[in-house]
Amino acid sequence: MTNPIKETDDAARSLASGLIADARMAALATLPLTGGFPMVTRVAVALIDGQLVTLVSDIAEHSQALSSNPACSLLIAAPVKKGDPLAHPRITVYARAEFRGAGEKESLRSAYLERHPKAELYYDFADFRLVRFTVDRADLNGGFGKAYRLGPDDLKPV
Amino acid sequence: MTNPIKETDDAARSLASGLIADARMAALATLPLTGGFPMVTRVAVALIDGQLVTLVSDIAEHSQALSSNPACSLLIAAPVKKGDPLAHPRITVYARAEFRGAGEKESLRSAYLERHPKAELYYDFADFRLVRFTVDRADLNGGFGKAYRLGPDDLKPV
Repeated sequence: MTNPIKETDDAARSLASGLIADARMAALATLPLTGGFPMVTRVAVALIDGQLVTLVSDIAEHSQALSSNPACSLLIAAPVKKGDPLAHPRITVYARAEFRGAGEKESLRSAYLERHPKAELYYDFADFRLVRFTVDRADLNGGFGKAYRLGPDDLKPV
Repeated sequence: MTNPIKETDDAARSLASGLIADARMAALATLPLTGGFPMVTRVAVALIDGQLVTLVSDIAEHSQALSSNPACSLLIAAPVKKGDPLAHPRITVYARAEFRGAGEKESLRSAYLERHPKAELYYDFADFRLVRFTVDRADLNGGFGKAYRLGPDDLKPV
């Protein structure tokens, strides 16, 4: 079987970092607590100071999954208006999630709310916690025949 | 901590089955082959005769993951145009994936292509296989404070 992965070039790096910079939401995959099914849920995301973050509630099941095992992945995609959804660019980012303290959450408040103005309604709730994602690697799919495997350094703005 | 799950009613069932009936794509979460990170990728989906199906290529990593372990989940969402992405309805469907034979793929050809006309370009490629999802349960999130846990019977049209 032919290897479908193309050699990473600056066009791929630029597409990948652009998708992540523009992202307002992602599909988050987490591992099951005890066997069974992986979970995929929607999270709001923002790229702040070059790092992907989210805000999750303690009562959400994905928060419990990430607390138990921080290994996760995030599917980030450009909006699909029409046509074949598989022809549109998207990227899977493999990452470790880290819950951060209230002080760091407060310090990122204005940057996060600039990206997500409606989150002002709940940003300060005590059960909402800031999570940082440390990227391990990423799989970019720019459409059919445009698959790339990227490292963390490939995701910095070109 | 309060239980965030509301009692399932016909409005929740109707919202859930509508999201699934309208779905053209989903974020598919699969388990890692050997430890490590869960994977989340985009798949095209279609509801045909009441059952969710997709078409995946053997060379795609998610196909290998599903072949190794069929336990997966699918995040299906209504399109988000603006506003808080967390205020928009979406559903996580936990399911087992089953690869089906060439005969069944051929018999679903017209129904699938009605939903995905552009897939005519590759539907007949031998490496593209039909996968059926058998639903175990689902988590519906209709927006803040609207979380429901549904069984397979809740997802039939109301």
